[in-house]
Amino acid sequence: MRMEVTQVLHMNGGFGEASYANNSLVQQKVISLTKPIREEAITSLYCTTFPRSLAIADMGCSSGPNTLFVVSETIKVVEKLCRELNLKSPEYKVFFNDLPGNDFNNIFKSIDSFKEKLSDKMESGVIGPCYFYGIPGSFYGRVFPNQSLHFVHSSYSLQWLSKVPEGVENNKGNIYISRTSPSNVVKAYYEQFQRDFSVFLKCRAEELVEGGRMVLTFLGRKSDNPCSKECCYIWELMAKALNDMVMQGIIKEDQVTTFNIPQYTPSQLEVKLEVLKEGSFAINRLEVSEVNWNAMDECNVFEFESEMNESLSDSGYNVAQCMRAVAEPLLVNHFGEAIIEKVFSRYQEILADRMSKEKTKFVNVTILMTRKG
Amino acid sequence: MRMEVTQVLHMNGGFGEASYANNSLVQQKVISLTKPIREEAITSLYCTTFPRSLAIADMGCSSGPNTLFVVSETIKVVEKLCRELNLKSPEYKVFFNDLPGNDFNNIFKSIDSFKEKLSDKMESGVIGPCYFYGIPGSFYGRVFPNQSLHFVHSSYSLQWLSKVPEGVENNKGNIYISRTSPSNVVKAYYEQFQRDFSVFLKCRAEELVEGGRMVLTFLGRKSDNPCSKECCYIWELMAKALNDMVMQGIIKEDQVTTFNIPQYTPSQLEVKLEVLKEGSFAINRLEVSEVNWNAMDECNVFEFESEMNESLSDSGYNVAQCMRAVAEPLLVNHFGEAIIEKVFSRYQEILADRMSKEKTKFVNVTILMTRKG
Repeated sequence: MRMEVTQVLHMNGGFGEASYANNSLVQQKVISLTKPIREEAITSLYCTTFPRSLAIADMGCSSGPNTLFVVSETIKVVEKLCRELNLKSPEYKVFFNDLPGNDFNNIFKSIDSFKEKLSDKMESGVIGPCYFYGIPGSFYGRVFPNQSLHFVHSSYSLQWLSKVPEGVENNKGNIYISRTSPSNVVKAYYEQFQRDFSVFLKCRAEELVEGGRMVLTFLGRKSDNPCSKECCYIWELMAKALNDMVMQGIIKEDQVTTFNIPQYTPSQLEVKLEVLKEGSFAINRLEVSEVNWNAMDECNVFEFESEMNESLSDSGYNVAQCMRAVAEPLLVNHFGEAIIEKVFSRYQEILADRMSKEKTKFVNVTILMTRKG
Repeated sequence: MRMEVTQVLHMNGGFGEASYANNSLVQQKVISLTKPIREEAITSLYCTTFPRSLAIADMGCSSGPNTLFVVSETIKVVEKLCRELNLKSPEYKVFFNDLPGNDFNNIFKSIDSFKEKLSDKMESGVIGPCYFYGIPGSFYGRVFPNQSLHFVHSSYSLQWLSKVPEGVENNKGNIYISRTSPSNVVKAYYEQFQRDFSVFLKCRAEELVEGGRMVLTFLGRKSDNPCSKECCYIWELMAKALNDMVMQGIIKEDQVTTFNIPQYTPSQLEVKLEVLKEGSFAINRLEVSEVNWNAMDECNVFEFESEMNESLSDSGYNVAQCMRAVAEPLLVNHFGEAIIEKVFSRYQEILADRMSKEKTKFVNVTILMTRKG
């Protein structure tokens, strides 16, 4: 739930501290799960091209503690290769991209201490020169000059569409595609994903050098059915909270009908199809992974117990806060500020109830590609 | 009073709206005065190298309304040349540099509307692709990769030293070099300027391509004497305000003695000497200009009258606010918050009195250089 969400957040509202920390835990888990793919990507890239200058872009970088982590990891892999192969370190150009509303100031303030830590962690204490850039702009358009990048990374951003699809006015009682959505709604969402992702691929194809690698992780699904519970349930439960408030007369039914989340959680096949259609990239890997809705579930309890306060051990609270970081600005924009506390309080109850009765997970689709010649 | 000040500001405090607006008026005047030199620089650069990709850096960019103005002006000159010479527009890479504490978010939020306005202003409505980057870091160190820039611009930033010089403990009663400063203090300030500016030149020499141009404007002086009134008076009057408060027992004498402003206002000759010593640049132009302390004095009264409130027509207030934007964070850091209102209230009285009796101006030194082969 990075990029476009953070972007919406920063444009329309802001993170609460709690939600941000929780949200970052889910991301952290995803980033840890996808580490082997990134390592493979950067290793094969480096060992086939030996660039003197290595340009790395994080697209939809957000501005939290995970933003610099992937970069640090990537540089460490390259530095290790350089030592093993007895080669001089390349120069690193690191580009942080997100929408103009993202908090770039926060990233920039961390860079000096990040550089120091990175140097300390390297055995030699010396790494190649690093240059850090912030680049504002939607990745559903050109962000970088032609053939200026070697490695593109994006995690938990590309499930966000450029906008709510048109023609979903009859998605009654739902706020995302759902098992009860009319077929035209499902089709509209899928087609918006196709348009957006193909634009993304086309732009990145122009920006990457031949042989450049790209690793993308989407919030996605395993099933072929876009209305599958694994991807829609989390929003169905939020719709339930909103519909309960319609029943109580707090909000109008029509308001819920006209509210839709600009997201699409693609399957492996759907991702693959767009890549093949666009044609500029060879697919090296395509994988699925899972993270519990409450990422705290997967932490070592003993490790965290002493630091964990009661609220953090409350699954309903954690997931509601995580989703609040994502959805609050969208909800505020549509329904106004006044109902927010009630919505999330009700959502938390619903989540706690469901999570006590069933195992709930986010599904991630990760793809590694190489820019063809 | 850009860059390092803004940087200190953002690290230690923040602009007040009034002070910022006023400060920007002085800058605006300086930027307008130095326009012919920038036009000459970009014209000669473009017409000798015809780059397909033009990398422009604003070093110490700050984040106010003037930040994008110089860039817009520069792009317009190139686009006009392209049309006259019937050449395809180059691609523009625009780099905004300032310390990590600068408000880059504010710049980034303006970029989309800036691009639209720029396109609207061009006769054809079409300009070359523009990429905008924020790069945090002190310009007294490497900021960009080797030979990656064509045009460097810096306005009202380079008079800020990297730190207060060492060995100025005996600058009693003063907060900057002054007509009553001991000679070791004047020497320490000048040597700090020499060290800082030579590092700046060395770094930029590595970052600029052969034939690349650099236009720098310093707050400076015309006289050979670094204690000349034209550059020291503004701080002498602030020292007077502080010393008055010492007399009143509000602050201790020792506190004023240990407070010094990290600035040096060089002469043309001093700037020239460092450039010649460093050796990488040929000097194309070296000029001096002046702006009234109260930049409002130079505005067309009829043009502004209707919008001008009483406070803006009060010279003492305007200049005190302008200097407050610059000095408040430094003062707060040294003396604490509590005395600030009193200091600036007294400073305003002193300024109003002096300005009613004498003509007071800031002196600017502007240099245009070309990176030698």
